[in-house]
Amino acid sequence: MEKNWTDLSNKEIDKMQKIAKSAAKLFNEKGYLETSMDDISNAAQLSKGGIYHYFSSKNEILFFISANFMDLLLRGLEEELQKIEDCFSKLKYFISRHIKFYSQYLSEAKTVIHEAHLLPPDYFKVIADKERQYHQIVSDILFDYFEGKIEKDRLKAVAFILFGTCNGIYYWYNPKGSITPDNLSEIIGDILCVGLTGYKQQKGDTGGF
Amino acid sequence: MEKNWTDLSNKEIDKMQKIAKSAAKLFNEKGYLETSMDDISNAAQLSKGGIYHYFSSKNEILFFISANFMDLLLRGLEEELQKIEDCFSKLKYFISRHIKFYSQYLSEAKTVIHEAHLLPPDYFKVIADKERQYHQIVSDILFDYFEGKIEKDRLKAVAFILFGTCNGIYYWYNPKGSITPDNLSEIIGDILCVGLTGYKQQKGDTGGF
Repeated sequence: MEKNWTDLSNKEIDKMQKIAKSAAKLFNEKGYLETSMDDISNAAQLSKGGIYHYFSSKNEILFFISANFMDLLLRGLEEELQKIEDCFSKLKYFISRHIKFYSQYLSEAKTVIHEAHLLPPDYFKVIADKERQYHQIVSDILFDYFEGKIEKDRLKAVAFILFGTCNGIYYWYNPKGSITPDNLSEIIGDILCVGLTGYKQQKGDTGGF
Repeated sequence: MEKNWTDLSNKEIDKMQKIAKSAAKLFNEKGYLETSMDDISNAAQLSKGGIYHYFSSKNEILFFISANFMDLLLRGLEEELQKIEDCFSKLKYFISRHIKFYSQYLSEAKTVIHEAHLLPPDYFKVIADKERQYHQIVSDILFDYFEGKIEKDRLKAVAFILFGTCNGIYYWYNPKGSITPDNLSEIIGDILCVGLTGYKQQKGDTGGF
């Protein structure tokens, strides 16, 4: 299933994004299953009819949030990475870009992580495919970074650890606090990139990953 | 509020742990709010009366799971750390111990992370206090590790990043797969410890965290 929102005017898209933003915040606070269309209508300050004009169901709102967020992560990423020569810089760029989008769209990120799996299978497949595509990009960078000398399962583990480190931020991070998104991306980037270099070095020295 | 389970026999505690294990798995699959006492009774293969003999409510089961898991993390930790001399080894030990318990009790860990906040405030306070205590232990190690030369907010961020990295594993980790809990703890330990050393070095060189 692939929903086509390309025929809509900018004004319509803006309205949908406003509804989606209110809904994502509610999903974070109450959980997707506990949130009703009435709650969304109240939070978005629109009549229920107004919401149904844009979205035929709550599932569709969840799908809109998730697909848009994944598209935001994927859009232009491969082209941007191609312009960077070495894998270490690619990795650093990927992490810093990921943190930037996550801290800028915390409610949407949290919604994708915690609620997207509640979508009906045909909707969820679209999101899972986008997630796989995003995951593959970082796995490819890591594979090059380890010069191919890493077992498949370890590569998978390292990629997941990388995402775990970046994605755990939504539990506690307040982008309006004293640590700016740039600071955060620098801290995580330093820890992960240096850590991976150390891991590569150490395992390379002992002859095996 | 502090529930006292110390007067129970080992046999009773075993039974409660069996119920709690089944409930934790259900909370992971369906979410706490969506799980009924009927579901728990079916999964634990006990009558509802049998469940109510041990727990007066679903809240009490969630509390039992969360308190037990946090106690498991805290029990003996400070004594074990005191026996280790340098902060780097303390940090490595803490991470490896954390991963060991998390991979061994994945359902319980996930329940604490995702469901404990749904407890009534007086129950939740007990869990949050234990979490704070655990968090404080790692913050103290990190503070020593950075020789006190780290701002409070950055220290907090680094501690949360450490937990995020370790706790993200439950999304994907299968302890029965080719990466054993020991392998995983080694991979994460290497990445984080080397990463933190690099972070410390880098910031120390430029004169500020």
